[in-house]
This record gives sequence, C-alpha cells and structure tokens, in this order.
Amino acid sequence: MKAVYHEGPKGMTGLTYGELAQTEVKAGEVRISLKAAGLNHRDLFVLTRHSEDDPALVVGSDGAGIVDEVGEGVTNVKKGDEVIVNPGINWKHNTDAPPPEFDIVGLPGHGTFAESIVLPAENAVKKPVHLSWDEAGVVALAGLTAYRALFTRGQVKEGQKVLIPGIGSGVATFLLQFAKAAGATVYVTSRSEEKRQKALELGADYALDSEGDWEDALEGTKMDLVIECVGAATFNKSLKQLRKGGTIVTFGASAGDEVTINLRDLFYGQQNLLGSTMGSAEELDEMISFIEKHQIRPVMDQVYDLKDYKAAFERIEKAEQLGKIGFSISK
Amino acid sequence: MKAVYHEGPKGMTGLTYGELAQTEVKAGEVRISLKAAGLNHRDLFVLTRHSEDDPALVVGSDGAGIVDEVGEGVTNVKKGDEVIVNPGINWKHNTDAPPPEFDIVGLPGHGTFAESIVLPAENAVKKPVHLSWDEAGVVALAGLTAYRALFTRGQVKEGQKVLIPGIGSGVATFLLQFAKAAGATVYVTSRSEEKRQKALELGADYALDSEGDWEDALEGTKMDLVIECVGAATFNKSLKQLRKGGTIVTFGASAGDEVTINLRDLFYGQQNLLGSTMGSAEELDEMISFIEKHQIRPVMDQVYDLKDYKAAFERIEKAEQLGKIGFSISK
Repeated sequence: MKAVYHEGPKGMTGLTYGELAQTEVKAGEVRISLKAAGLNHRDLFVLTRHSEDDPALVVGSDGAGIVDEVGEGVTNVKKGDEVIVNPGINWKHNTDAPPPEFDIVGLPGHGTFAESIVLPAENAVKKPVHLSWDEAGVVALAGLTAYRALFTRGQVKEGQKVLIPGIGSGVATFLLQFAKAAGATVYVTSRSEEKRQKALELGADYALDSEGDWEDALEGTKMDLVIECVGAATFNKSLKQLRKGGTIVTFGASAGDEVTINLRDLFYGQQNLLGSTMGSAEELDEMISFIEKHQIRPVMDQVYDLKDYKAAFERIEKAEQLGKIGFSISK
Repeated sequence: MKAVYHEGPKGMTGLTYGELAQTEVKAGEVRISLKAAGLNHRDLFVLTRHSEDDPALVVGSDGAGIVDEVGEGVTNVKKGDEVIVNPGINWKHNTDAPPPEFDIVGLPGHGTFAESIVLPAENAVKKPVHLSWDEAGVVALAGLTAYRALFTRGQVKEGQKVLIPGIGSGVATFLLQFAKAAGATVYVTSRSEEKRQKALELGADYALDSEGDWEDALEGTKMDLVIECVGAATFNKSLKQLRKGGTIVTFGASAGDEVTINLRDLFYGQQNLLGSTMGSAEELDEMISFIEKHQIRPVMDQVYDLKDYKAAFERIEKAEQLGKIGFSISK
C-alpha cells in the first residue's frame, strides 16, 4: 500500500511517500480502507521521537474510511461500515487521567497516512453522517482534545466569557465552534490580522491582537474560562485576564513550556489551573453527539494528496493554517 | 478595654498592649465579651499593611466569648450566648470566590486581641460545645482555611493519599486531623525532627524530612492530593509527587510566592492546581459540624496572656509552633 512513513534520520529527512507492506488483521482487530486523514501538530513530534533503529512507521493519528476486513470476535463493526479512527488506544472511560497502557495511533503503532490501517476494532467509530470524508478524516484528535479541555475540564457554561489565545490550530477552531454552540461569549487572539478576521467570520465575538495589551483591549472585562495552548508566550497574559474563581485549562505549549506564576495571585484569586490532553473513548462519543446535534463541521484549512505531504508538514510547522489540514486518499 | 493594637510605625514596633475605647454597638451588630483569641500568620501581615496614618487598630481575627450586647434587629443570637467569631465578613455562601465586599476581621475593622469586639451579628457563631474556651478561640480561621482547601477544593476521598508539606502551622495540623478523619492516608513533611515525631503522634502515617529526597522516601508512591502552603521552597517537590490526574491545592506561600512550573508535565499529567484561601460562612458551619462529629480539638501549641503578645508574635514569626497559638483573656 502507498503510505507516508518515517524511517532512519529524525525529522522531515526521514519522511517518505512510498510502498509499504500491509499489516495482518488479528483477532479483535479491523482493517480500515482509508479515504481521508488529518494532520496534527503531534505528527511533527513523532518525526523527532521515532527511533532511527526502529522499522518504518506510518505517521498520522486521524483518519476516516470503510471497514475492509474484520478479525475474529469483532462485533461492534462489520465490513462496509463507514468509520473514523479514535486516535486514543486503551482509554475507554472518562477518568481523571488515561490508564498506563494508553497510546496514541501513529506511534508506537502504524498511523493513518496510508491507504489502510489495522486497529483494535473498538477504535473504529461510526462516522458522523453530516461530515464529508475529508471533514471526517480530521475531526477526532483535535475535536476530542477541544471537547475534554472545554467541557470535561473547563466545565464551560452558557453565558460565560471564554478566551482562546492563539486561534489558528485545529483544536483552537474547534474550541471556538464548541464554545459558541455552548452559548459562551468567545474572545480569541492571534498575531495575524487575517486569522483574527476569519475568526470573527467563524463566530468569535472579539478578536484581540496577541501582541497588544489585552487588558486595554478588554477594558477590564475578566474571563470565566481560558483555554490555553500557546504556553510561555501568552500564559501570564492569559492568567491576568482571569476572574477570581475562574479556570484556565492548558493543553499545549507550542511557544514554550516553562512558566513562572505567582502562587499568591492564584490562591487569593481562588483560581484553577488544569492540565488536559486528548480524551477517552467516552468523550469521543460525547463529542460526536455534540457536533451532530449542532451540525458542526471542522474548519478546513487545506486538503492535500498524500504524495504532497511535504507541503502539508511545512504548513503546520510554520503555523500558517487556520483550522485543519487534511489528506485525501485515493487508490 | 485592654487590647493589643497597632498604631504608627509598621511592624512589631507599632504594636502595644494598653487601654482603648470600646466601639458602640449599632443595629444588626453584637458585642462579644472575649474569653480567648487565636494568633494567625495573617496578624503578622496586618502589622505591615495597617497604614501609619490610620487610627489604632486592634489586631486579631480569631476569638471566642459571650454575647454581651445585642443591637437592634438581631435575631440569630441573644445576650449570654457562647459564640466564636467567624473571621470572614460578607462571604455567606460557598461560591467559587468571595464577593467583592469580603473582608477579614482585624483589618480594616478592629480585631479580637481585646476584652471585647463589635461585629455584624451573623459573624457570631455558636461555640462547639466539646471545645474549651482556649480551643474555641483558635479554631475558626485555620479550621475554615483547612476545610475549604481539603474538602471544597481538594475533594478529598476516603483511601486517598494526601501530602501536607510543612507540618507546623495551625492550618497544617487541622489538615492532618481532618484528612485522617476523612479516611485518608496522610504524609507530612517538616525540617524539624521534633515536629515530625509530634505529627506521627497526632496520627500522620508518614513524616518526611522536608530537606531530604521525597521521591526516595516515598519509594515511588504518588499522591492523590497535596495541600501546599509552603510555596517556592517545596512547590516543585510537591508537584513531582503528584499522581497523574492528581490535585495540588495551594493556600499559602510563606517560603516564596514565585514558582516556575512546566506546563507540559501538568497537561500530560492531567493535573489540577487550585488556589484556595479562607472560606464562606456556609463552609464554617460545615467545618464545625465536622469537628463536632469527629470530636476534633485543635492542636494547641501555647496559650499566652494578652500582655505577653510579644512572645507569641515572635514564636509564630520564627515558625517555632506546632499547632495553634492562643491568647487567654481575663478581666
């Protein structure tokens, strides 16, 4: 099968589009013939983490397609079912942290940037009917991350003020759509005038310049909830805009992971600083019900052919996208 | 009336034991004739915060005594009732943060280190019958702070492992007693061999040397909950001992308030960092029911006469105490 896989030297240098043998389907597993896949920031990390000594690894955590082969004992799906990939392996219920055996599709096991993938059958989840194949291919990892951060962890409520610094990533655009659907007033920030404009078109109530004075721009309005994935570059600016008793959820640190905070501000402010990442199978089901109910479709940035993987990886590395970057897979 | 009051130069220099005029009781207020009072770390801060230009201020947030005079319209207490002072003014219900009009007894209004105090009647709360006057005089501020941090914020559960760094303060000894009564396994730390020994006698399951290697001492055992009031000196050591999905509640920073944390550790660990301080009238009632149910009495360090205030302030400033320092007040 054709696949984008990593082998040998770390980084983009070790990434190739070419022919790779298919994996065999064992008991409890399914093979999904993939129609689409989604690129995530994690795929960049995988290129630096996959060992030079290990065999070729298909990259990618998100995908959608048709069940093609069903292993012994599988009852939840059958051949011909339209499904998306749950990128989280072995995290079933909504617990406060994933179990020790938790893994993510695309490292250590093969990922989705290929014509097919073999997975535990429970990781094949019914495709939301209102989504196109390209949309279904990009929805799971970012949608799930946004859902857990905003609902399970952030406990967003109707009427709350929610700040999303760094609108641009797939998770950030889902956060914007989910928070609006939940009835919140949504504030976003970006360094890019173009992204701020686009965010307003997507429903954001306010769009601030990331590099400006947020306190001035917000005229003293404080946030009930901040969902923060930028990290060091904006973290303390975000904390400053949080109301007493408010919550900041952090799930990313693309601009640095070391931050210095003042404990006294935190405890006099009775504030909550909560870490979040990914989510359980249970939360994925809740997220899918939510986007079906509100007819939410992912914000699509660009869709590439698998063979044009380099352009896609460069685009996410430079953070040029607004929304999700996808791959369309045809045989 | 005799009182310990602050006037003029900041710090201990401005602190005097002497005669001060009583305040008049207005509608909705009561005068409590005080039998006992409790010293808190906050009283040290008050000495540095009370303005040199303002009139003399009676220090102290904790006290217990007998209702002596009742203002117009007061129905919750009557003359002769045995009461303790709720040190929190205007925070009635258990909300996520106190309302803007929240104050603490002892700044800006007169405090408890005096023969009597005038307060809003709702701040006079029935004295727990199982406590002596000296015990009742020290229970409210520290007990309330411990209660909110451990239960409302930390959501402690039976069977959990709870770490209390820096056993010594009144709040820390309440935390130890409350956590044991709630069925937790309790780990404490102290630099003092004597305090570690005393903590074990008080029911702690393990007592670690604050300056040692906690990871070694705990042999890999991770904590469900850490209640942290030391601040910079131990904060990152505490964070390291927290399990995935665990919670750290911070309510003090006597050893520094600036800490550098790693967001990536926090979000991959799905951890919670929660600020807490004081508590509402509702939580004070819950705390009193809890200590009555479990027959918990405050750990008494030393009780002084009001006129010996200097020795008491020096003892808390040097953090020599284990448990509560009180004042016995007699006419």
